[in-house]
Amino acid sequence: MNLPALLDERRARAALSRAVEPGDEHAGRWLHRYGATGFLDRLLHTDGTSPPGTSAGDDPFPGTGHKRVASWRLRATAADPDRDLATIQDLGGRFLIPGDTEWPRQLDDLEDARPIGLWVRGPADLRTWALRSVALVGARACTPYGAHTAGDLATGLARKGWVVVSGAAYGIDGAAHRGALAADGATVAVLACGVDSPYPRGHDQLIRRITEQGLVVGELPPDSHPTPSRFILRNRVIAALTRGTVVIEAQHRSGSLVTVRAAARLGRHTMGVPGPVTSALSAGVHELLRGEAALVTDADEIVELVGDMGQLAPTRRGPVLPRDLLAPAAAHILEAVPARGPTPTTVIARRAGTTPDETLAKLYELHSLGFVERRGEGWELTRPSASTPNARRGGP
Amino acid sequence: MNLPALLDERRARAALSRAVEPGDEHAGRWLHRYGATGFLDRLLHTDGTSPPGTSAGDDPFPGTGHKRVASWRLRATAADPDRDLATIQDLGGRFLIPGDTEWPRQLDDLEDARPIGLWVRGPADLRTWALRSVALVGARACTPYGAHTAGDLATGLARKGWVVVSGAAYGIDGAAHRGALAADGATVAVLACGVDSPYPRGHDQLIRRITEQGLVVGELPPDSHPTPSRFILRNRVIAALTRGTVVIEAQHRSGSLVTVRAAARLGRHTMGVPGPVTSALSAGVHELLRGEAALVTDADEIVELVGDMGQLAPTRRGPVLPRDLLAPAAAHILEAVPARGPTPTTVIARRAGTTPDETLAKLYELHSLGFVERRGEGWELTRPSASTPNARRGGP
Repeated sequence: MNLPALLDERRARAALSRAVEPGDEHAGRWLHRYGATGFLDRLLHTDGTSPPGTSAGDDPFPGTGHKRVASWRLRATAADPDRDLATIQDLGGRFLIPGDTEWPRQLDDLEDARPIGLWVRGPADLRTWALRSVALVGARACTPYGAHTAGDLATGLARKGWVVVSGAAYGIDGAAHRGALAADGATVAVLACGVDSPYPRGHDQLIRRITEQGLVVGELPPDSHPTPSRFILRNRVIAALTRGTVVIEAQHRSGSLVTVRAAARLGRHTMGVPGPVTSALSAGVHELLRGEAALVTDADEIVELVGDMGQLAPTRRGPVLPRDLLAPAAAHILEAVPARGPTPTTVIARRAGTTPDETLAKLYELHSLGFVERRGEGWELTRPSASTPNARRGGP
Repeated sequence: MNLPALLDERRARAALSRAVEPGDEHAGRWLHRYGATGFLDRLLHTDGTSPPGTSAGDDPFPGTGHKRVASWRLRATAADPDRDLATIQDLGGRFLIPGDTEWPRQLDDLEDARPIGLWVRGPADLRTWALRSVALVGARACTPYGAHTAGDLATGLARKGWVVVSGAAYGIDGAAHRGALAADGATVAVLACGVDSPYPRGHDQLIRRITEQGLVVGELPPDSHPTPSRFILRNRVIAALTRGTVVIEAQHRSGSLVTVRAAARLGRHTMGVPGPVTSALSAGVHELLRGEAALVTDADEIVELVGDMGQLAPTRRGPVLPRDLLAPAAAHILEAVPARGPTPTTVIARRAGTTPDETLAKLYELHSLGFVERRGEGWELTRPSASTPNARRGGP
């Protein structure tokens, strides 16, 4: 990697996202101490040369094993952040880093395991969508009952204006994404691989559809492949991004339970959908329900729980931002929402002269910001309430 | 009714059990104040005549409506306790009243709604059996899943030496009784009618079998028929008699939920078995599980909960009574249990020279008293533990 004198933060983080495995807390601590450019600088200049501010021969990462540092250095040297950033741009996507307006600040709860950056594709604003999102997770080899229930919950959540987050895997994940898409709803797929090389292959079409109508997100740079540990570490991002995680079918000791426990540690709501006690695929869920997780059977019950947080009052009415602070694209869509009656997305898109996908993305953002409400298959302007004009104070 | 000068408590309660509907707390208060003989005396002598200790014309039951008192009086006058007591005796049964050794003292928790007495048929000791009992209740029109699960839990509980209590109705109740019987286990049917006139008719055979191998219990005197309110009030007896109630399938607002809520008010454990969220017959259970009830999926989990009470330490080892205080029939069976290895009920019965049903009844009593343990299909002597020879201090 060829570095200019002054490293740019985004380019440094892009390089680090290739050098460091997701969730590496050792790296997270150095990143916190030196900043992205400083950390990368130290990685690239200690191969015989001395980095600025240290004398030759000093260990620049005391307490971190040599093997781990050697692996970072090897991969940082091979990284080409300019190419990766060009790739994501060519795909119509972006590489988000902390400090960006679109960065979902709830990821900061992951502390040293916070993603170095997020590679994102799709027309919506990740930060705004994440404010009103719920994770639906569960077994890959689910039963027809599980798939049906996941689809049903996702459709119900979408109809209520909630964003469905999942991992794009076979089984429950796929059913959840499809349920949201089928209701013209918002959905986010968090991948354990590059957002340009979706996995599993059998979900190519589904993931492409989410790229158009929702958001596809990952920590790994373009052309990265999933590994078992990457799947597990991806789950912490799903947990942190959302207001709560619902597990639909899970065997004892399954990966979905990891996501739920991560959510619990982060103070998120954890929920489980019961099933027959005769089904091994419900055994893991029942185990959770015998602990801290709340039993939920439909979208109403989920929203009742996750909506019940001080920051996002469920009875909130009216926008939290002055209309003239809206980004132009969102303001344009807002102007296209008729004054009366629920209006389908397609009609609003036609009035705004843009695509239904782009319209839907903005409508969900406007919903998060309190400007519009979803009613059935349509959207309407939020009627301001005299008593709580400005009840919301911030994100989760 | 023809009364001797000195009313006998048992005969008075037998008469009152015909005069007063189950769970009538007005009657319970007068019963508490005047005793059974005094209450009955006042009922029978205020029809124009004055009862002892009152002047003519005084209202003997101030605060209780005249219609209610008139109904008590009418039915008390028509009662024939001697005939009822002869009937139950002819059936090989008995009429238990508070103060009897076999009276289950946990029914006192019902306070003014405590049964006036209990008509009982079957070879076992109700008080001892109730000490280690669990109620399994649920929908009459249950699904195959519910019936299977009820049978399974009952078999599992019976195998662990627990007594299964239910209401002998179609559906979950029947499956629970049958599951216990199939495992050569102990089961108690609490009826909402006379124990000589079982209901429903389609469960004639089942109830007769329970009369032989278990216990059939009711508050109503011989030849009484069930009514909707008697079904509901029967449920409080099931709840009070047991250490906990498990509801297996129940719709919203069903009678089983009444039993569970009664159990909760009495400080008993309340448990629910989850099912598919797509099943209306699990909706009532899920509602409970979202409240105070604990989610259980097998007999181990039930026993873990109900066995976890101070009075009946789960790690208890060894008998709580000196062997020479045992009733002769129980002592006789205890002598027939071989010193080594689990022995089937039939073998113990043969050694004791009595019937398997009689033997089983006594074995469950001996189990409650800590003399024997159930292992698989057989029984063995409890091995005394050095640390907790006498850990149990009383009933629930």
